[in-house]
Amino acid sequence: MNKLIEIASNSNNIAVTSHVDPDGDSIGSILALGLALKQKYKNVEIFTADPLPARYDFLVESKYIKRYEDVKDKAFDLFFALDCGDENRLGKSIDVMKKSKTVVNIDHHISNTQFGDINIVNINSSSTCEMIFSIIKDIGLTIDQEIATCIYTGIVTDSGNFMYDNATDKTHLIAAELIRANIDKQKIMYNLYQKKSIKNLRFLGYCLTNMEIELDGHLAIFEITSTLLDKFDIPSADIEGIVNYGRDIDGVDISVTIREESDSKLKLSFRSKHDDVDVRKLAELFNGGGHKKASGATLNASLDEAKALIIENAKQFIRR
Amino acid sequence: MNKLIEIASNSNNIAVTSHVDPDGDSIGSILALGLALKQKYKNVEIFTADPLPARYDFLVESKYIKRYEDVKDKAFDLFFALDCGDENRLGKSIDVMKKSKTVVNIDHHISNTQFGDINIVNINSSSTCEMIFSIIKDIGLTIDQEIATCIYTGIVTDSGNFMYDNATDKTHLIAAELIRANIDKQKIMYNLYQKKSIKNLRFLGYCLTNMEIELDGHLAIFEITSTLLDKFDIPSADIEGIVNYGRDIDGVDISVTIREESDSKLKLSFRSKHDDVDVRKLAELFNGGGHKKASGATLNASLDEAKALIIENAKQFIRR
Repeated sequence: MNKLIEIASNSNNIAVTSHVDPDGDSIGSILALGLALKQKYKNVEIFTADPLPARYDFLVESKYIKRYEDVKDKAFDLFFALDCGDENRLGKSIDVMKKSKTVVNIDHHISNTQFGDINIVNINSSSTCEMIFSIIKDIGLTIDQEIATCIYTGIVTDSGNFMYDNATDKTHLIAAELIRANIDKQKIMYNLYQKKSIKNLRFLGYCLTNMEIELDGHLAIFEITSTLLDKFDIPSADIEGIVNYGRDIDGVDISVTIREESDSKLKLSFRSKHDDVDVRKLAELFNGGGHKKASGATLNASLDEAKALIIENAKQFIRR
Repeated sequence: MNKLIEIASNSNNIAVTSHVDPDGDSIGSILALGLALKQKYKNVEIFTADPLPARYDFLVESKYIKRYEDVKDKAFDLFFALDCGDENRLGKSIDVMKKSKTVVNIDHHISNTQFGDINIVNINSSSTCEMIFSIIKDIGLTIDQEIATCIYTGIVTDSGNFMYDNATDKTHLIAAELIRANIDKQKIMYNLYQKKSIKNLRFLGYCLTNMEIELDGHLAIFEITSTLLDKFDIPSADIEGIVNYGRDIDGVDISVTIREESDSKLKLSFRSKHDDVDVRKLAELFNGGGHKKASGATLNASLDEAKALIIENAKQFIRR
């Protein structure tokens, strides 16, 4: 960490960013690290390629996160890429990375390609936020209440509220420290999980009623057309959790949502609950990636073609 | 705790039990305390008034838990009542309690009536299991892997996976210790949350599609008739979680399930997500009880009468 402190101290400006389609861990980690760096260093820019989903508005400093367009003309001495398995996850922000002097890659994905000049990768961490907690302390900065709130948000969203096996004893010790940093846990939980729209739950009701079960009960499929999203009047960001309902069925090894994006591409999300059912490898067959138990890909195909392809390819991954 | 050690040492036999309708915290706590006591004391009986739901079969020692009928003729020197707000929660096991020399009441309900000879009540504890963790250590017994598994089960089921505000920094520190005691966390999570039946999810789909919203969006109601349970072919124990889906809607202050029991009684479950919306008080209007944010009651009425009564009585508790 001494090297990181040295580089930061010698940098005139610092960028902190993460992947496209921001989620709790990417937003939490860039905000936490960015706010911490601002305690000591000047010209720290926190930015994302895509806008943030509204559910993270309760992270009060999130309104100061800039967009790619605001910083694209700058060249940074130090560039932090957080929660990105590879540099393409940065989307258009990769341009900014390429102009930067030193790239620091901090991530917890097993597929990480070590694309930075400095790579801090811990595949046993629940979240990038969990790593950022330690890094902030190691470089002598302070976990204040706001930073603790960001880190807690990333940990709970990436660990399924400590449910996934990536939540270790260390994760819980950090959670205890974050609570002692006086976070308003109820506010975080309320904003993340208790502000669902009625439309959202009606949509979930529809999806569960129409969920398809294939491969003798080993594969659950949710087909989400754009017509359906229009009918229920919900944004596509709101359907994130649907795929987990299929995963949690007894006997189901793989759950998948096939979702029509506005640009006629299909977005696939895969989930597994077993160590020996690796949906990252399944996603890789569609040029996607992710974790062993949570992965994704995009696909140019019709819904029916996609479904047939998924069923065919899933066969080799399900349990016998 | 010295007094407890003294009494236990001087007891010829010890009973450990909990409330009717066993749940994760009651089963986890009686098993954990009972197994721990067996390390040092003889003639320890763990029993319940009602059979255990099958989802807790993974707690391997649970098969040795006896029923009320197996122990009803015994008189115990020491009787532990766990997770019971009052003695009536024991159901028929209250007979056994009344014959016992010393009753120890260990609980975390705010409504606890201090009905024991010794009362250990901590309303700030996430669960009775969390209390049992400390008590086992305080009386010099050992948290082994099996006991840790039971305690972890009680903590996660009573704290909504650390989501509720009853999960404090202390809860997380204990969770870290339990993980270090080598529990198989994935096995616990799989058995608690990832073995749902397809019927169960179709039923959830139906409930969400037919959920009623009253009082200008402040009250969510799920009506669950016995016909419906028959149609979806699911046991009434499987519908526990439905009420939470209503609670988690933006603007909803109170969520309630009205469920027809086989004996033509109605069972009411209430949930709140706000500190200032106290559904324990609402449940008390129906002679029920529980916690501020999770309570219940039974009612002899028709479904329509019950619904009208709930709407009328809920008015004074919702936010304006």
